[in-house]
Amino acid sequence: MSLFRPAGVITITTDLGHKGPFVGVMKGVIATRYPGATVIDVTHDIPAHWPPEAGFWISRAYPYFPGGSVHLGIVDPGVGTERDILVAEVGGHLFIAPDNGLLATLLPRATSIRKLDLERLAGFNLPVPSSTFHGRDIIAPVAAELAAGKLRVEDTGSKTSDWTPGWLDEPEVSHNRVSGVIVTIDAFGNLISNIDATLIDGFRSPEVKLSGRRFPMQATYGRAEPGSYLALINSFGVLEIARVEGNAAEHLGSDRGAPVVVTDLGAG
Amino acid sequence: MSLFRPAGVITITTDLGHKGPFVGVMKGVIATRYPGATVIDVTHDIPAHWPPEAGFWISRAYPYFPGGSVHLGIVDPGVGTERDILVAEVGGHLFIAPDNGLLATLLPRATSIRKLDLERLAGFNLPVPSSTFHGRDIIAPVAAELAAGKLRVEDTGSKTSDWTPGWLDEPEVSHNRVSGVIVTIDAFGNLISNIDATLIDGFRSPEVKLSGRRFPMQATYGRAEPGSYLALINSFGVLEIARVEGNAAEHLGSDRGAPVVVTDLGAG
Amino acid sequence: MSLFRPAGVITITTDLGHKGPFVGVMKGVIATRYPGATVIDVTHDIPAHWPPEAGFWISRAYPYFPGGSVHLGIVDPGVGTERDILVAEVGGHLFIAPDNGLLATLLPRATSIRKLDLERLAGFNLPVPSSTFHGRDIIAPVAAELAAGKLRVEDTGSKTSDWTPGWLDEPEVSHNRVSGVIVTIDAFGNLISNIDATLIDGFRSPEVKLSGRRFPMQATYGRAEPGSYLALINSFGVLEIARVEGNAAEHLGSDRGAPVVVTDLGAG
Repeated sequence: MSLFRPAGVITITTDLGHKGPFVGVMKGVIATRYPGATVIDVTHDIPAHWPPEAGFWISRAYPYFPGGSVHLGIVDPGVGTERDILVAEVGGHLFIAPDNGLLATLLPRATSIRKLDLERLAGFNLPVPSSTFHGRDIIAPVAAELAAGKLRVEDTGSKTSDWTPGWLDEPEVSHNRVSGVIVTIDAFGNLISNIDATLIDGFRSPEVKLSGRRFPMQATYGRAEPGSYLALINSFGVLEIARVEGNAAEHLGSDRGAPVVVTDLGAG
Repeated sequence: MSLFRPAGVITITTDLGHKGPFVGVMKGVIATRYPGATVIDVTHDIPAHWPPEAGFWISRAYPYFPGGSVHLGIVDPGVGTERDILVAEVGGHLFIAPDNGLLATLLPRATSIRKLDLERLAGFNLPVPSSTFHGRDIIAPVAAELAAGKLRVEDTGSKTSDWTPGWLDEPEVSHNRVSGVIVTIDAFGNLISNIDATLIDGFRSPEVKLSGRRFPMQATYGRAEPGSYLALINSFGVLEIARVEGNAAEHLGSDRGAPVVVTDLGAG
Repeated sequence: MSLFRPAGVITITTDLGHKGPFVGVMKGVIATRYPGATVIDVTHDIPAHWPPEAGFWISRAYPYFPGGSVHLGIVDPGVGTERDILVAEVGGHLFIAPDNGLLATLLPRATSIRKLDLERLAGFNLPVPSSTFHGRDIIAPVAAELAAGKLRVEDTGSKTSDWTPGWLDEPEVSHNRVSGVIVTIDAFGNLISNIDATLIDGFRSPEVKLSGRRFPMQATYGRAEPGSYLALINSFGVLEIARVEGNAAEHLGSDRGAPVVVTDLGAG
């Protein structure tokens, strides 16, 4: 049985950018079906056609939204082909995205994963979808009906355990060493990795290396000299490389995909 | 008689960008007059002082919003001069914009077009407008009063049939050939033309040319090889030139205004 | 006694940009505590770690929002250090920001300034704050409770008269001369100064100089030739240098901090 109790909140994460009406019309479709919806932009600046970054941010951001929220991930290079659309439930939240690896980090925790079945939704008067914008034509209206409590999760499609894996490897973990990658870069140029704090919690003397360079672990930006580099556990619980009051990505020349290794120098 | 039944939804399309509080204060003005309004951004990345792109997107996007929405177009190089502000009605939606060609593609379909007459709005306590931001000082408050149902369309001003024409030519159409231009480029670098699908619907074997180069027609991005180019009818019903999982505008060096020609090679 | 009567409106001004979920999760936190809130973005494109521009725009923009709004300024290079968070009241509006000079232009007009005291807020079940994102962990939830009318201004902390001064000098004023600086640049490339119109109102024949170059005063953009430069009082009541239908900042090579001087050539 679903623990989803609709809160009326829909979040949107896309690679659609801010040019053109693409996100706006999704909100128009939602407002048409469910005028009371609260729609919140997560980000629309995911690199084009790169699902893993959308999934990373959705999986790290969703706990800050009300239980009963519906989270949409629209990064969809395969739109118009036979790829499925998934509806997953995690901790009373719903997630809807193309089955292209976007939700891969969340799906192992899902209490249910369904393949959206448009034939079961005949009563909802969905439009004939375009070949190139299922975010507007399928995902937004389905999200609106779910958020409004008019469509039940159970009625969106059959359960499945067969879904596309993620595009990035999960971190490799040994007793004194964790290696991961830079997943994304924020507006400050902070380099954000996929290494969760819990993986290095027990390290007595962690040494952080990015592209061969060492970074000292600190608690926050403000405790080091402007211009100096540091590693820290950021506010989303993952390891990050930053430059105090500066732009680490620009000055280090590092980018998404760069390998990050944490070694416990204090391990016995 | 007006078919406009206010839905409480206001959309905003501008060239104001995201720096500074320009769009935010318009929303503040709306919230002050009509706290229950649902305000939706279409885009604020219209090229500066270029009304036709705002009009293009508004005319293509508005059907995705609830009937009874009020759509604002704020691209206003002539602000502070004697130019008028138009209030037009199309299919139960309202459109408000400076009379500078922005709404030109919609106006031939309008059931009424009025010149906003501030003297008739004395009861609404509008501010003395600044010389440089009528979007905030005139259009936003008028939109709020219309969306709230406190101001009737009929009371906004006298009807007119005299308005500024559009800045772009409509496509030229013959029995086996349609020629138009690139109007805008989306975040993916897709080149979007003003050639409506209906103009080439009957073509048996359409050949698409942009700047002398030929592009095969396809149904969607996902059916061609990454890196290959194609032409397709996009999700807003116009012809578009795209590069699969790539940036067509960047790689072709094409921009707004580039001529696009579709010829029916199968025409008798 | 406070004149703040909550209107349910929260505005957000930050340097967090549009990449990543940073602003989105603040809205999620607000929606969790106060589902009825109206949250309005002012701008998220403040230059990184530069509080004065956030304060400038907040102080110029807030009168366009309903009385009883709560305005958040999140530019916080000292996050995680011992810096305070201020809650100030001006004209029935509330302002919350780190005590780093951000609110300095508003504070002299405040009817109360308080240092946020988390110990007094034990009843509100705030999260243990992260070291790097107090906007999400402290400011957003406090704003939600204030905007919802569940937390009283008086209960946020003790009054203080000890706060960090602004980072920019206020304009220097003599009887026939005012000198200030460029504070910000908008999406059009207009160079916006900190010289308030009232400082030069009495000037009979004002001459405006930026970096040694003279600019004629005009009422609005539309009255001069495209490509020509002008100075004007903009819609936020401060002196601005603009290029008609062009980008003044780009063509003049001027930037934030450039000195602007207005001299009254007609002064006796």
